[in-house]
Amino acid sequence: MNVHTPRQPSSVTTGPLPGSRKAYVTPSCADMRIPFREILLDPASGEPPLRVYDPSGPYTEAQPHIDLATGLPQIRDGWLARREGLETYAGRAVKAEDNGNVSDEALAEPCPARRAPRRGVGALVTQYEFARAGIITEEMVYVAHRENLGREAALAGAAERRADGESFGAQIPDFVTPEFVRAEIAAGRAIIPANINHTELEPMIIGRNFLVKVNSNIGNSALTSSVAEEVEKMVWSIRWGADTVMDLSTGRNIHNIRDWILRNAPVPIGTVPIYQALEKVGGDALKLDWEVFKDTLIEQAEQGVDYFTIHAGVRLQHVPLTASRTTGIVSRGGSIMARWCLSKHQESFLYERFDEICDIMRKYDVSFSLGDGLRPGSIADANDAAQFGELETLGELTKVAWDKGCQVMIEGPGHVPMHKIKENMDKQLRECGEAPFYTLGPLTTDIAPGYDHITSAIGAAMIGWFGTAMLCYVTPKEHLGLPDRDDVKTGVITYRIAAHAADLAKGHPGARLRDDAMSRARFDFRWQDQFHIGLDPDTAKQFHDETLPKEAHKVAHFCSMCGPKFCSMKITQDLRQEAAAMQNEKDLAEKGMAEKSAEFLEKGGKLYLET
Amino acid sequence: MNVHTPRQPSSVTTGPLPGSRKAYVTPSCADMRIPFREILLDPASGEPPLRVYDPSGPYTEAQPHIDLATGLPQIRDGWLARREGLETYAGRAVKAEDNGNVSDEALAEPCPARRAPRRGVGALVTQYEFARAGIITEEMVYVAHRENLGREAALAGAAERRADGESFGAQIPDFVTPEFVRAEIAAGRAIIPANINHTELEPMIIGRNFLVKVNSNIGNSALTSSVAEEVEKMVWSIRWGADTVMDLSTGRNIHNIRDWILRNAPVPIGTVPIYQALEKVGGDALKLDWEVFKDTLIEQAEQGVDYFTIHAGVRLQHVPLTASRTTGIVSRGGSIMARWCLSKHQESFLYERFDEICDIMRKYDVSFSLGDGLRPGSIADANDAAQFGELETLGELTKVAWDKGCQVMIEGPGHVPMHKIKENMDKQLRECGEAPFYTLGPLTTDIAPGYDHITSAIGAAMIGWFGTAMLCYVTPKEHLGLPDRDDVKTGVITYRIAAHAADLAKGHPGARLRDDAMSRARFDFRWQDQFHIGLDPDTAKQFHDETLPKEAHKVAHFCSMCGPKFCSMKITQDLRQEAAAMQNEKDLAEKGMAEKSAEFLEKGGKLYLET
Repeated sequence: MNVHTPRQPSSVTTGPLPGSRKAYVTPSCADMRIPFREILLDPASGEPPLRVYDPSGPYTEAQPHIDLATGLPQIRDGWLARREGLETYAGRAVKAEDNGNVSDEALAEPCPARRAPRRGVGALVTQYEFARAGIITEEMVYVAHRENLGREAALAGAAERRADGESFGAQIPDFVTPEFVRAEIAAGRAIIPANINHTELEPMIIGRNFLVKVNSNIGNSALTSSVAEEVEKMVWSIRWGADTVMDLSTGRNIHNIRDWILRNAPVPIGTVPIYQALEKVGGDALKLDWEVFKDTLIEQAEQGVDYFTIHAGVRLQHVPLTASRTTGIVSRGGSIMARWCLSKHQESFLYERFDEICDIMRKYDVSFSLGDGLRPGSIADANDAAQFGELETLGELTKVAWDKGCQVMIEGPGHVPMHKIKENMDKQLRECGEAPFYTLGPLTTDIAPGYDHITSAIGAAMIGWFGTAMLCYVTPKEHLGLPDRDDVKTGVITYRIAAHAADLAKGHPGARLRDDAMSRARFDFRWQDQFHIGLDPDTAKQFHDETLPKEAHKVAHFCSMCGPKFCSMKITQDLRQEAAAMQNEKDLAEKGMAEKSAEFLEKGGKLYLET
Repeated sequence: MNVHTPRQPSSVTTGPLPGSRKAYVTPSCADMRIPFREILLDPASGEPPLRVYDPSGPYTEAQPHIDLATGLPQIRDGWLARREGLETYAGRAVKAEDNGNVSDEALAEPCPARRAPRRGVGALVTQYEFARAGIITEEMVYVAHRENLGREAALAGAAERRADGESFGAQIPDFVTPEFVRAEIAAGRAIIPANINHTELEPMIIGRNFLVKVNSNIGNSALTSSVAEEVEKMVWSIRWGADTVMDLSTGRNIHNIRDWILRNAPVPIGTVPIYQALEKVGGDALKLDWEVFKDTLIEQAEQGVDYFTIHAGVRLQHVPLTASRTTGIVSRGGSIMARWCLSKHQESFLYERFDEICDIMRKYDVSFSLGDGLRPGSIADANDAAQFGELETLGELTKVAWDKGCQVMIEGPGHVPMHKIKENMDKQLRECGEAPFYTLGPLTTDIAPGYDHITSAIGAAMIGWFGTAMLCYVTPKEHLGLPDRDDVKTGVITYRIAAHAADLAKGHPGARLRDDAMSRARFDFRWQDQFHIGLDPDTAKQFHDETLPKEAHKVAHFCSMCGPKFCSMKITQDLRQEAAAMQNEKDLAEKGMAEKSAEFLEKGGKLYLET
């Protein structure tokens, strides 16, 4: 990979993944370029390039023109410019408190890419409103083509090669049409997080009748802070397959860091506005009020944040339910709001002002990610009264947000043992009217710090299968420290595994194409193809080369696990050839193949093998 | 950890895990010492040491007396010496072919610890036969105490703290008694792999009404070979929690390496005898015959191998069923036997001689691990006719082996998408009369070489929950290369996670104690305790220290993820204290606590928090 060095503020990782190239597809019906990745396979194999979903943006083009100071191309700008009911306006002036009142020397340089903000002033602003009105937006067309990937090839295959699956009530279509996308959004079952001020966005969709998505978290903390690192973490996350990225910064320069991220993000960016609001009041939860929160919502909405985690479900009445828990409240937002409610003996202002929050978010089409502030932080606390009490409130709020025209998804746990996972999904679907579920793991045991990407991948794969639309990744550093670059990559790839395992189990028509391509490459001993088809070509190649480093081994008809004499795949290949030869010599002229096969199976006698 | 340097052939890793000590418990009823590990917790916490299951043998004692040339103490020798129906005899002489006819210079030194072999000559030899006769052996008493771990504490806990779970028909007892163990073995639902010539063994049990177990694979290959490495890999595997170890060596010096391993193994050792048989005939499958196989069985049984993988289910009639597969036959043993059957147009000698195999294995109480030679090697081939055809044959053979007095478990896949996993378990239970299932993963997708410990941990946790008794680990190197020391550790710990997640979900009474201890340590910010309770204290501490290296941070009431201001657990703790203070000041004399709580919940008014 190349490391591109732009003028500001840092270099980011660019260039295609090994063996891959970027492919943009322009559908006949619309003026847009849908991004895919094509994995090029050994020409001798006769296999066409394998097309896969690609959230990595222009960074993985062969010769990307990246200038972080200018930002990515504004592919949505033309669409939005034509859309009625939006207006451009001056926007809110940046305040010193937005960046934590840092001194001039400590202030991160603002991103020079300025965009005059838009806001909605008409009757139709959000994707939900358009969908309800029966209107298909460009974003809907775009995601339909993205999601349709592989379906044609899959459905053209032999009947027995078609995907099977158990979808638990999800209605996965043979083909994804723009109209299907519209209908799903109108039903509240899916969202396209797409702030009208995030013009650089390559739209994507979150819903249980679509491919399972993965979110990665980045963000500075009070202990570390760097614009360069955070932008690179975003680019690095999407390189390995993150579909959305949450910026959870809590330190200084929050506003300016977020600006750099948004102007250079082809994926939806989510935030938790209460974090910044708390910074603005000096970290004292009791000083939080509606005014500072509202101001923060507008600040971030104008920047283009695509979804906000809002912990409006943490109500005063829920707080006592956490008192006998083993691990109390483990969500930052949840504990901030619990402290506020408790100390003031007042109902949460997020709950009481929920209508007004909706009005603001609708105006920019910021999607709700209704936060699970009372999610369990341990196996002991899973599925308890506090968690489910909050979930019921989130269901109530979902309907309010829909009435206000907003898009909504619902956050979920957390720490849940396997036998209690399905109850979470079922209750969420029931309480929240099938609004998309977005879960953190869940972790299926508490006993493996350092390996919580794995404890949680088990739960994530299962809940994704049951119907969760997006999985928030967990890195190996969970519970222990801040993820570094390697941890981010491990977290994203682990969650791509969980999401893909879920897609396979749900029976997405095209999901198995990649598995099948890998399996054929394995059976043919096409080592380079195996590396390239995999989620992490670099690691696969490195592991292979540790045992068999020579170039000749890349075409060897065995691997280091069994060695040449014992290779079972080699033996099977030889078997087929021998059987074919015998077949040719002895039987070719005699009988039809099917007849022969039936005879063999009947008599248990002489062998017949298809080739 | 200390690295002990014995005289021969190499050093192995010894010493306790950080924060732990070995604890041997002698039950009142029997003269035996049952090994446990005790994790010592911060005395200020008031928590007693946490006792956990411990397969690591004497190596993790504080001052272990390890001499690899002498071997481990023969704790079973006294039991076996008293047992009627066994005789000591001269045993088979070692032949040059047993070690691959290596030259004198290349020959690994034989292990000096010689044991005169025993064999069964009476009516009762195997654990199965004793169990059927209503006799409780020392091994059954031993495993009952091992498995009973934590149940007393768990059941003494408050009712709401008791484990719940969904066991899918498993009958998990409140207490594990020796009689329960006997009854499970007599029913064929569990086995104690315990060759009468493996006197060094600390007995353990495999069955779905017991804790889920983990196997690790070691073994040299044609490409690498070292006694020292293999013994250390065994010790290293059990240090991190492997319950059994399979020696899959295929290279030179197989006999001598195995001797070193067995004399120093406190866990059951499994092998695949066909590998060595094939070495003896120069690697040509067509030269295999009953005589060389029989000789190999006796050779290994006399050495003390506890279970043999026997691929007797790969019948001539099954081979054509693999012809249209995407990845053919991926089991080494399976492909060897398929080639043999196909080339000779004969039924498998393993199938035809199964009675005689049983007679040999019974004589030494070697347990069957009936091999799944036709397991799927890809998502595309999962649950196909070849796989299930073989499984039906394994069911038939299970009954034969039981009639012959042998213990039996059944090997399972492989590569299986999530929605097809349960069918495997259900069919196995049905076809094989509830004999224990022992699966490799299964891997839930094919697309992540380098991460197959994770793709398979998802499937392993699920199938363990559904009823699989032992999980064969998969390392990050699967499909790519030979696992090194780090890979072995990663594989074992990943599979301990899967097994524990399954135990939790099944509702094992004591399983949650470790999770709860971790959660309390988290809530109390006892960092050292968190490291020590976890499956991998070293990695947890290292990850923590990367962000917060100072000793003071080990007692810090926050972590690097949120920093001091944002720490949600800290906020919850403060909340509790504040609430308790308010409670004391304002309400203490007024009303009973339950009343107050009810009042709060009713009116949604003033706050009440339990402390």
